[in-house]
Amino acid sequence: MTHILENPKNSKFMELAISLAKKGMGYTAPNPCVGAVITKGNTILGQGYHRRCGEDHAEVAAIKDAISKGHDLKDSTLWVTLEPCNHYGKTPPCTHAILKHNIKEVNIGTLDPNPNVKGGGAEFLKSKGVIVDIGFNEIQCKNLIRDFITWHKKKRPYIFLKLAQSLDGKIATENGDSKWISSQKSREFVHNLRAKVDCILIGGNTFFNDNPKLTPRIEANEKKDPFAAIITSRLPGSDSEYYLINSRPKKTIFITTESDYEKIKGLQKKGVKIIHTEKKNGYINLYQVLSKLFSDLNCYYILCEGGGRLAQSLVKNKLADEIFLFIAPIILGDDRAKSSFSGNTVAKIKDGYKFDIIDYRKIDTDLLIHLIPKGDI
Amino acid sequence: MTHILENPKNSKFMELAISLAKKGMGYTAPNPCVGAVITKGNTILGQGYHRRCGEDHAEVAAIKDAISKGHDLKDSTLWVTLEPCNHYGKTPPCTHAILKHNIKEVNIGTLDPNPNVKGGGAEFLKSKGVIVDIGFNEIQCKNLIRDFITWHKKKRPYIFLKLAQSLDGKIATENGDSKWISSQKSREFVHNLRAKVDCILIGGNTFFNDNPKLTPRIEANEKKDPFAAIITSRLPGSDSEYYLINSRPKKTIFITTESDYEKIKGLQKKGVKIIHTEKKNGYINLYQVLSKLFSDLNCYYILCEGGGRLAQSLVKNKLADEIFLFIAPIILGDDRAKSSFSGNTVAKIKDGYKFDIIDYRKIDTDLLIHLIPKGDI
Repeated sequence: MTHILENPKNSKFMELAISLAKKGMGYTAPNPCVGAVITKGNTILGQGYHRRCGEDHAEVAAIKDAISKGHDLKDSTLWVTLEPCNHYGKTPPCTHAILKHNIKEVNIGTLDPNPNVKGGGAEFLKSKGVIVDIGFNEIQCKNLIRDFITWHKKKRPYIFLKLAQSLDGKIATENGDSKWISSQKSREFVHNLRAKVDCILIGGNTFFNDNPKLTPRIEANEKKDPFAAIITSRLPGSDSEYYLINSRPKKTIFITTESDYEKIKGLQKKGVKIIHTEKKNGYINLYQVLSKLFSDLNCYYILCEGGGRLAQSLVKNKLADEIFLFIAPIILGDDRAKSSFSGNTVAKIKDGYKFDIIDYRKIDTDLLIHLIPKGDI
Repeated sequence: MTHILENPKNSKFMELAISLAKKGMGYTAPNPCVGAVITKGNTILGQGYHRRCGEDHAEVAAIKDAISKGHDLKDSTLWVTLEPCNHYGKTPPCTHAILKHNIKEVNIGTLDPNPNVKGGGAEFLKSKGVIVDIGFNEIQCKNLIRDFITWHKKKRPYIFLKLAQSLDGKIATENGDSKWISSQKSREFVHNLRAKVDCILIGGNTFFNDNPKLTPRIEANEKKDPFAAIITSRLPGSDSEYYLINSRPKKTIFITTESDYEKIKGLQKKGVKIIHTEKKNGYINLYQVLSKLFSDLNCYYILCEGGGRLAQSLVKNKLADEIFLFIAPIILGDDRAKSSFSGNTVAKIKDGYKFDIIDYRKIDTDLLIHLIPKGDI
């Protein structure tokens, strides 16, 4: 009996292009992150990635890299995670650069999902005699642009959810002690994530109990100064001593159902932003307020740092695009301790929310599980 | 500045010996599991492991294997996970076999922790001119005999705790639905574990709600027929239709505080065993009843399959020697669902029970985390 083996079309060059693309992740919006490698036989001539909107696309960056090293690109192969663009945006079409340098073959990770572009670049290159092959390391390449797809198709920010829990799913003791469940290295990972997002989202309890700073406390050449958005039914007084409203008022946003005009005015006077919202059937429309952060404040990436009720609301509303779940090797064993996800009711196991584990690894003593909604690639 | 690098004394031959030892795990009691490899230069001459009590020790099995292949053992090297014995038990001392075959060098994983033996075999071999080196892959070799150390030092069974939970630490919904949190392959793993233990331990709720069989349902040349022990405050009637008391009465043990003489008599008449115990300050003495299973019924290995209160009691009483925690990629998000560990009260995170992750891997869609108590090697 013969088995027909699936050919997943994996290439080490595409893997390199993917790792290059990831370097730009967080900084390219509204563009996707893209990586590119140029080879001849087994030799790498050049490599590049899209660093930020307005700068060179990955293909052009790789071409420039190869030329700066004195290589002739005639008959070379370009490996690019996303289909090259074929239109004039802030930069000229990559397809032109490919043709100009006589690149012979273009191997593409995945096609551009943007309806304006779909098939455009690849088809155009083929029509000009370039050998085009599509679908190398395709799942990983599609994963790279999940953010981009979310912006275009859902018109909302791409949302990371981060939680640090015990083995038995607790994020704090009954009286709120949570320092520290996760290891120093896990917390560093989170600060790196904070440096790539435009807004950090928390619930009111986290704001009032922890009085957090929510800044990316890392050394980095490139880091953002994210907004802090707090979803809360009650506002603090403008004269209260919370760090965010005193030290980072212009970076603080309250998403609230409270309509105390005096409080709102006081906070706004300090520079704090207020997004007023209404409850409907006991719930606020999370999609609506998050879309507002996207459209009005250019929040392309949001990192939600809990607590459990907000985390569960995101999951329930299909707004948790990626979950980073840090599991510390401790057991609390206390039913009254606070759960990582809370506020839901399920009768059957099969009614739970399903995810795919896309990565898992030790970070110091913790285990980090990286998840995306099941089948959502 | 120079760094003094730790030399962990790892060897691929000791790794092989360790994997051989694991083949015997579960079947060697009251002996430890041991693996051995004989080499000359980079060539493996023979290998073996201790299969069960009364049969060849690993060293002798490896020597016989090498001889059966026509090798001369003069000037060879023996790699053995545990210090060779130097006393007459059910088999002659391994040290004699080593000397008889002129093995030149003996590399040992870890010394025998048994006070009767400590230093004996290694010292004796040295005194006879054999080159002895100790501490190869030592942590793993020590891990291999954690069961053996438990039997000797704690006079109780070695206890595995297995739980299958959602990402947020739930083992069942509020109304008890738990079929199935974990994947088919994870459940097969558990059946393999069942085949190596002498007793499977559950709580009364699991018995009454799930009416379990608790048999190892796998195809295997070698498998045990473990007892089912139920810790419960109430006994079922002897005429009730639970699987265990009807189909496997002689393999069923109730550990109970109930003293209804008629019920006890009825169950005993069927062949069911009853271990009566008392509560003290609201708790039964778990150590005491588990020691009884060890001393009276030769239960060397116990596998506890929950629920959450029993799991937490084992952890609290330092009776969970190894935890196999299966995490399925689902979120229930329901505070009323049943937790994997329950019944404890902790004020501070630092008061939680601490573990070391010794292994973690995907099993189908689940993640299996393998833990031992922190620092407990």
